[in-house]
Amino acid sequence: MSEHPRVREVTSLSNATVKELRALHDRKGRRESGLFLAEGARTALEALDNGRAPEILVYHREGRERDVVRRLRFACLEAGGECLEVDDAVLAKIARKDNPQSVVAAFRWTRRPFAEVDPAAARVFVALDRVRDPGNLGTIVRTADAVGAGGVLLVGDTCDPASVEAVRASMGSIFAVPVFEGSEADFLALASRWPGSVVGTALPASKHYRRADLRSPILLVMGNEQAGVTDAIAAACTDLVRIPMQGRADSLNLAIATAVALYGIAEPEDTALG
Amino acid sequence: MSEHPRVREVTSLSNATVKELRALHDRKGRRESGLFLAEGARTALEALDNGRAPEILVYHREGRERDVVRRLRFACLEAGGECLEVDDAVLAKIARKDNPQSVVAAFRWTRRPFAEVDPAAARVFVALDRVRDPGNLGTIVRTADAVGAGGVLLVGDTCDPASVEAVRASMGSIFAVPVFEGSEADFLALASRWPGSVVGTALPASKHYRRADLRSPILLVMGNEQAGVTDAIAAACTDLVRIPMQGRADSLNLAIATAVALYGIAEPEDTALG
Repeated sequence: MSEHPRVREVTSLSNATVKELRALHDRKGRRESGLFLAEGARTALEALDNGRAPEILVYHREGRERDVVRRLRFACLEAGGECLEVDDAVLAKIARKDNPQSVVAAFRWTRRPFAEVDPAAARVFVALDRVRDPGNLGTIVRTADAVGAGGVLLVGDTCDPASVEAVRASMGSIFAVPVFEGSEADFLALASRWPGSVVGTALPASKHYRRADLRSPILLVMGNEQAGVTDAIAAACTDLVRIPMQGRADSLNLAIATAVALYGIAEPEDTALG
Repeated sequence: MSEHPRVREVTSLSNATVKELRALHDRKGRRESGLFLAEGARTALEALDNGRAPEILVYHREGRERDVVRRLRFACLEAGGECLEVDDAVLAKIARKDNPQSVVAAFRWTRRPFAEVDPAAARVFVALDRVRDPGNLGTIVRTADAVGAGGVLLVGDTCDPASVEAVRASMGSIFAVPVFEGSEADFLALASRWPGSVVGTALPASKHYRRADLRSPILLVMGNEQAGVTDAIAAACTDLVRIPMQGRADSLNLAIATAVALYGIAEPEDTALG
């Protein structure tokens, strides 16, 4: 065991920090502490690569000398955080499952309003109107990362981007892509002064998504899983498009439709490709 | 309660059929009975629309006179199946969750070998090499439905396409899109006599996915979530392509990459679109 005063061995399931970490599975717990959970060494390393250190780092005590754990511990302590060296039972309690990852880390959530969006920072951004499913949200953040988007804007009453499910589906991209949160009114204000195209996807639209009127930076707007975009948001778009489908109209998952639209209108360059 | 001899009211959690249905959450239970579970009236109706009736239909007894339940009950009985009218507790037991759908149906799984694939039946097919995640599998079946694919081919040791998670993610498309299962050797045999292009996605490929050499019917081959396609499968492809990404190489989810590739090389026509 380390001699550092902020590295503790914890095997009690009733430890206060263990309870606090477990509470991060619920939105209430995250709101009260301002923290969120990231599972797995790989995701925590992704955070480090993006300049973020964990406030609380938890790892299996048998893995304390692993290179990756040493690197995470150093970063955590350097940033003033605390480390818990734990056993299987404590890991399982924090992760709320039987076969948890051997590293779990808690990071501070940075809530970013739409006023902080810088349209000049990238050539494409994604806005999601009232997204409900955290798996969709996390997968969209991951895809936004792959296309080099400048951020994901969550409009209105959405699921929590800091939930364990959303963070897990993002595969570390939650640390690479800024997530902004705001009301519909805030979004309409942003859209009205957006310097490029605001492209909404809507079922009644008659224009093919790859024939959208495109001026950079592009703000792609995707609607709620069931209801699509609101009328007010549709009216704020400079262009409305749809993705062709055979069969049922609702036949694409939201994260899939977002990816198809992103690659259709803002595919990243890859100069190595022929 | 109906007078039909094959409509029973069941409120006992130890009822044999209830136990059999609950066992369908496990691969072993599905193998033994040949059945799989579909949750929700919408998914069951999707089955009816594709000519499939449930062998066992379960619904909340308070909903027995709903139009959708009557339609499902009629189809089930006409096909020789049985109906269970149940309460909250039995529904929760079968669904293994607290807020289950009010309709759950068990259908017979049809196992289709690669020998039954008819390349003339559609202009695109999707093959998945050792797919691990049932959510990815179900989402890919849903996307295959949206592009009018002729089938999804599961190669080698894959997750179970009949699992509750895969069926749920398919949103009913599991009844519309044929799923074929076979070994790698079976797949290589099929690929060798495939009349069109066999397009594999592989990270080391140097060709852009939308510049693939395309002859109809297209067989799109996607690799395992971690390992990609095997060397043997890559060698059997007529073309290897990759999807451009910024940042980390593994930054697209498998279902997302499949959708981007499908829309890039085999987008469905939509004559209503400008």
